[in-house]
Amino acid sequence: MQRRTFLSSFAGSMAALSALPAAHAAERVAVNTPSGKPSGMVAKEGHTPVVTLNGQSLDWTVKDGVKEFRLTAEPIEQEVAPGMKAKFWGYNGGSPGPTIEAVEGDKIRIFVTNKLPEHTTIHWHGLLLPNGMDGVGGLNQPQIPPGKTCVYEFTLSKSGTFMYHPHADEQVQMALGMMGLFIVHPRNPNERRVDRDYAFLLAAYDIEPDTMTAKTSTMTDFNLWTFNSRTFPAIQTLVARQGERVRIRVGNLTMTNHPIHLHGHTFKVSGTDGGWIPPAAQWPEVTTDIAVGQMRVIEFIADAPGDWAFHCHKSHHTMGPMGHSGPNMLGVDQKKLSHHLEQLLPGKHYMAMGSTGMAEMQNMASMNEMMPLPANTLPMMTGTGPYGPIEMGGMFTVLKVRPDLAHGDYQDPRWYKQPKGSQAWIMD
Amino acid sequence: MQRRTFLSSFAGSMAALSALPAAHAAERVAVNTPSGKPSGMVAKEGHTPVVTLNGQSLDWTVKDGVKEFRLTAEPIEQEVAPGMKAKFWGYNGGSPGPTIEAVEGDKIRIFVTNKLPEHTTIHWHGLLLPNGMDGVGGLNQPQIPPGKTCVYEFTLSKSGTFMYHPHADEQVQMALGMMGLFIVHPRNPNERRVDRDYAFLLAAYDIEPDTMTAKTSTMTDFNLWTFNSRTFPAIQTLVARQGERVRIRVGNLTMTNHPIHLHGHTFKVSGTDGGWIPPAAQWPEVTTDIAVGQMRVIEFIADAPGDWAFHCHKSHHTMGPMGHSGPNMLGVDQKKLSHHLEQLLPGKHYMAMGSTGMAEMQNMASMNEMMPLPANTLPMMTGTGPYGPIEMGGMFTVLKVRPDLAHGDYQDPRWYKQPKGSQAWIMD
Amino acid sequence: MQRRTFLSSFAGSMAALSALPAAHAAERVAVNTPSGKPSGMVAKEGHTPVVTLNGQSLDWTVKDGVKEFRLTAEPIEQEVAPGMKAKFWGYNGGSPGPTIEAVEGDKIRIFVTNKLPEHTTIHWHGLLLPNGMDGVGGLNQPQIPPGKTCVYEFTLSKSGTFMYHPHADEQVQMALGMMGLFIVHPRNPNERRVDRDYAFLLAAYDIEPDTMTAKTSTMTDFNLWTFNSRTFPAIQTLVARQGERVRIRVGNLTMTNHPIHLHGHTFKVSGTDGGWIPPAAQWPEVTTDIAVGQMRVIEFIADAPGDWAFHCHKSHHTMGPMGHSGPNMLGVDQKKLSHHLEQLLPGKHYMAMGSTGMAEMQNMASMNEMMPLPANTLPMMTGTGPYGPIEMGGMFTVLKVRPDLAHGDYQDPRWYKQPKGSQAWIMD
Repeated sequence: MQRRTFLSSFAGSMAALSALPAAHAAERVAVNTPSGKPSGMVAKEGHTPVVTLNGQSLDWTVKDGVKEFRLTAEPIEQEVAPGMKAKFWGYNGGSPGPTIEAVEGDKIRIFVTNKLPEHTTIHWHGLLLPNGMDGVGGLNQPQIPPGKTCVYEFTLSKSGTFMYHPHADEQVQMALGMMGLFIVHPRNPNERRVDRDYAFLLAAYDIEPDTMTAKTSTMTDFNLWTFNSRTFPAIQTLVARQGERVRIRVGNLTMTNHPIHLHGHTFKVSGTDGGWIPPAAQWPEVTTDIAVGQMRVIEFIADAPGDWAFHCHKSHHTMGPMGHSGPNMLGVDQKKLSHHLEQLLPGKHYMAMGSTGMAEMQNMASMNEMMPLPANTLPMMTGTGPYGPIEMGGMFTVLKVRPDLAHGDYQDPRWYKQPKGSQAWIMD
Repeated sequence: MQRRTFLSSFAGSMAALSALPAAHAAERVAVNTPSGKPSGMVAKEGHTPVVTLNGQSLDWTVKDGVKEFRLTAEPIEQEVAPGMKAKFWGYNGGSPGPTIEAVEGDKIRIFVTNKLPEHTTIHWHGLLLPNGMDGVGGLNQPQIPPGKTCVYEFTLSKSGTFMYHPHADEQVQMALGMMGLFIVHPRNPNERRVDRDYAFLLAAYDIEPDTMTAKTSTMTDFNLWTFNSRTFPAIQTLVARQGERVRIRVGNLTMTNHPIHLHGHTFKVSGTDGGWIPPAAQWPEVTTDIAVGQMRVIEFIADAPGDWAFHCHKSHHTMGPMGHSGPNMLGVDQKKLSHHLEQLLPGKHYMAMGSTGMAEMQNMASMNEMMPLPANTLPMMTGTGPYGPIEMGGMFTVLKVRPDLAHGDYQDPRWYKQPKGSQAWIMD
Repeated sequence: MQRRTFLSSFAGSMAALSALPAAHAAERVAVNTPSGKPSGMVAKEGHTPVVTLNGQSLDWTVKDGVKEFRLTAEPIEQEVAPGMKAKFWGYNGGSPGPTIEAVEGDKIRIFVTNKLPEHTTIHWHGLLLPNGMDGVGGLNQPQIPPGKTCVYEFTLSKSGTFMYHPHADEQVQMALGMMGLFIVHPRNPNERRVDRDYAFLLAAYDIEPDTMTAKTSTMTDFNLWTFNSRTFPAIQTLVARQGERVRIRVGNLTMTNHPIHLHGHTFKVSGTDGGWIPPAAQWPEVTTDIAVGQMRVIEFIADAPGDWAFHCHKSHHTMGPMGHSGPNMLGVDQKKLSHHLEQLLPGKHYMAMGSTGMAEMQNMASMNEMMPLPANTLPMMTGTGPYGPIEMGGMFTVLKVRPDLAHGDYQDPRWYKQPKGSQAWIMD
C-alpha cells in the first residue's frame, strides 16, 4: 500500500492538510516512557509500596525525626506518547510530580522550590493539617514567588489516598500538568495490606496539532485524555499474579467525570480521599465514576488470568486527538472528493476516510504502514495487541493476570496465551 | 391561527430556513414504535421477565444443554420519534439490539454475524468469563470481518444486570446505536423477586436536521437524548399496580452522566453492573446519577397512584433537537425582525419566537396547529398530556401507577383521573 | 501602574475590545449582597434553623391549622457579584426564591402567583405528595397562566432536603434562575440535630459581556457558576464554632455535576433528596459529586480552626466569565501584539496577558489598580484574602471555624490569625 495523506480529524480539517510534511512520520518511532517501580524506602519500612504508573515515589531524608521531601515546580518537556511531546509544568522533571509516600504518624517537611515564571503554592488535597499549611494562596499563605522556596510541615494524622496540586492560578497550573499523588500507609503494615498497589491521576489536555503547549482556557473540548499525563500505549501495564489482592488508587484532576472500567473482575471501592470505606458500605462495581477532585481506591482479587482492558468508558476518552466537529462522512462516497483534493494539493494523496466506519484506518496503522501525521500529534488509535490493533488510545491500559508471576515482579509479561477452547472463534 | 414558518433552533438558524417545505409536516403523523413485551421463555422458567422499553428479549434454542442465541450486527433504519427516522447500526433490526435474558448457571453460546461494512466484536460488559471471550478486538480475539460469524461461549456465573456492545471502532459503533441489555436472573426465581422488571439503555445521537445518520465525531453537543434510542413520546410508558415492587434497570452508553429522576416515590439503588448491593449499603434516592459505562438498578414499592414523570434531570436532555448556540431572543421585540425576514423570504412567514420564553411554542404544538419543521427533525417539545403539552421530550417517560391493574398487564392505562380535591387548582 | 485595557477572555476577544469605556469601572464598587439569616419562626418551634446562603426562609401564616406560604414567580434584577447585575426570573424578588422551611407532619398550603410573561408551574422535588400536586404542567395540572394564582396543598410526610422549581418550559425557566430550597425538619427537634445548618443551590448562567440576561439555549458552555445565583466574593461565608456539628445541604440545578470540596475536614454524606442515609452506609469524603437534580447533605464536626476553602473542584467553575476558546498566549511574547493593537485602537492600551500564566492579572486586581472591564462583567478572579488575591471566584466560599463564636452568631469573623509556627513559610 502506498503512503497516503489523510486528515487529522474524523471528517477532515482542510486547515491541517497543508501542515503535513512526510518527514514527521519518523518522529513517531520509539516509546520511551519510564516504567513505574515500587519505592524501596517504603518497602524497607514493611509496607507494600505503591507503583505509580510511569512514575516513581520521592525519596526522603530524615532530619531530627522529620522526613524531608523536596519538590521543584518547573516547566518540563515530556513524551505523552510515541512521537508526541508536550511542554508541561510539573514537579521534579515530570507530570505528574513524584508520588509522596509516607506512613501514618510521620512528621514530614516538604520544601517546595518555585522555578516557574509565576508564583505558585501547593495544596495537600485531603490531608488534615494546620490551616496555615493548607496551601490556598492568599487565604492560608502568601504566594511563593518565582525563585523562592516554601516550607510546609505537618504530621500525617491518618492513612489514605491523597493528592497535591497548586491552589494558585489553578485553572492554568493544573491545565499544564501540575499535580502529584500523596499516599499515606497505615502505621501497621498489615492493616489493609494488599499484594499490589497501583496509583495514577487522570489529566486532560488540549494541545492543538503542530503545537506543544496545552491551551489553559479549554473547559470541555480536550483532545488528550491521560493516565499520569500519558496516553495508551505509552501507559504502563498493570500486572498481578493470579489470586493476589490488587489495589488501584485513582484521582481525577480534569474537568469532567471519568468512569473507570475494569474487565474480567468485580471490584469494590474501598476508599476515597476522605478515608477508608467500611466493608459493609461498599458496593460491587465494574465501573467507578470518579468526579473531579475526587479519588477512588478500588480493590479486587485478580482471580481471572488473561489480558484485561482497563479504561475510561467514555468512548472519546480512549481516542487520540481527533476533531469533534466537521461534516459526517459515513456512507459518503469520497472518490470524487479525493480527486478534487488531490487537484488542489498536487503531490499529495487524500485518503478517503470514514465512509464505512473508522476501522479501515486502524488496520493501516497496525500494518505499520503509518501515514504521515501532523507534526507532534497522535495516531488516532494506537494500541496494538496480539490480534491486531486494539483501536484504543488515551485513558486505556491493560491488567495482565498470570498464574506464575513472582511476588514483586512488575515486568510486562507480554501477551496472554489463550488456553485452547477458551477463545471466541470465527466460523468459516 | 395560520401556519407560520419558524426556525429550528431557539434563536433561529438562517441556513435551515430555506429547507422548510410545508409538505414535510405530513410526515410527522403516526407514532409507530413497538411496545416492549415480557419474554415468554423466561416466564416459563419461573422468572419475572424483563420488559425492555420498546424492545424484546431474544429467543433461544437449546443444543446439548447450551442455550444458543443469534445476533446479527447490521445497518438499520428506525423511528426515533413520530416523523423522525434515523439510520443506525444495530442488532437484529433494532437499536438497541434484543435483550439477552438468561439464568444464573446457564451455559450459553452466542453466534454473532457481522453484516456491517466494517469489522466488529462484542464485549459482554460486566460478565465474568474466560479472557478469550471478553471481546476486545485485537486484545482478546481477532476482529470479526464483514460477512463472518463469531461464536462466543461461556457460563453465566452470577445473576445481575449487564450490557453488550462492540469493543471495535468503539467511538463510531456505539455512536451509531450498537448496544443491548444482558440480564441474568438468579437461579432461584424467588431470590430478589419483583413484580415488574423494566430495563433500558441511555443513548445519545447527533443527527443534524435534514440528515438521518449520527455524527460519530461529536463528543458533547448531542441533540438526541434517548431511552433505548427513542425520544418521548415514542418511549413506552412504565405501568405498575399500586403496591407492587418495581425494578428498573438502566445502563448508560452516552458520553455524559445522566441523573435519572423519578417523581412521587423514593427508591433505592439495589444493584450495579458489578452485582447486587447489600440492603444495609443502599441509599434512599429520588435521582440516581448513572455514569457512562455504568448500570444502575433501582427498586421501589409503587405505592402512590397517578402519572409520575420519570426522566433525566438535565433540562436539555428532555428537549428535542434545538441548537445550543445563537443569539438570545429573550426580551427582544422581534416584530421588525419578522418583517425583515419575510422580505428576504417571500411567501414565508417568520414566527417571532422566544421573546417571552418558549412556552408559546409548545401551546401551538399542542393545539395540533403544527408548523412545518425541517425534514426529518423533531418538534422541540413533543409530549402532550391530559392538561396540554407536557413540554418534555428526549429522555422522558411516565410511570403510571393504578390500583386495579392485573398482574402482568403492561398496557398503557391512559391518563390518571385525579381524585376530587387532590389536585392543584387555579384561583379565579 | 497606569490603567490599561485588557481583553475579557483569556486570549482576547477583539470584538469586546471596542466596548470598554473606562467609566464602567466605577460600577464595580460596592458588594451589596444580602447575608442569609436563620428563620425565627422555625427556631421558635425548637429547630436549628437553616441558613440559606445570601437568602432567607419564607414566613408563613396559619389558617385552620394549615401553614400558608406565598410565592410569586416574577422577573427580577439581582446583583450576582460586585458590579455585575443580571436579569433573572425568580420568586419573591430573588433567585433562588425564599427557602420554604417547615416541619414533618405539617399541613401546608402554597399560593403561587405567576407574574412572568409566560405560564409556569411548581414541582416540589423529592416530596411525596398526591399526584395532582406534583406540578408537572400538562401531566399533573394545567399550566398557571400569567396573572393567575395556583394553590398547592399537601402534608409533609417526611423530613429531609428538597427543592422547588418549575416543570413548565423548564429549560428556559431554570436557566433563568427559577428554583428554591424546601427543608423539612424532623417532628422531634432533637432528631438529627446539628449546631449549624447551611443550604444553597448550584446554578449556572451564560451571560455574555455587556448583556444582563442569560442565554437559555446554552447546554455546556456556561460562564457564571454560582452558589445561590452569586459568585465569590459575593457568596456569604459559612461560620462555625470549633467543635460544633455542621450540616450543609446542596442541590444542583445546572447542566453538569459539581464536585463540592471542603478543606481541612472529612465529612460524610448523611442525606439525599430521597431521605437520610443510615450511618453504616455513609462514606468518608472530602469531595462529594452532586449530580444535576440531586441534593447532598454533608455533615462534619468543625474541629479545625481556621479559614477553609469550600468550592467546586472543577477549576473553571471557580473562575469568572472568561472565554473558553481563542489562541493560547502561554509563552508568547506579546510586546509586538500590544503595539499592533494600540495602533488599531488609538487611545487604548492593550495589556499583554497570559504569557507567563494568569497570576500577573490577579495581582493587579488585588492592588486595587482595577482595569476597566467590559460593562456588567466580572473581574476574572475576584476574591482577596489576608495574603493577597485568592485567585478564585465562581463556586467558592470560605468556612471559618473559630474557638470562640457564640452559638447562633453567623457574623463573618474576618480573617483567621495563624498561630505562630503553624503556617508555611518562605525561605530567604
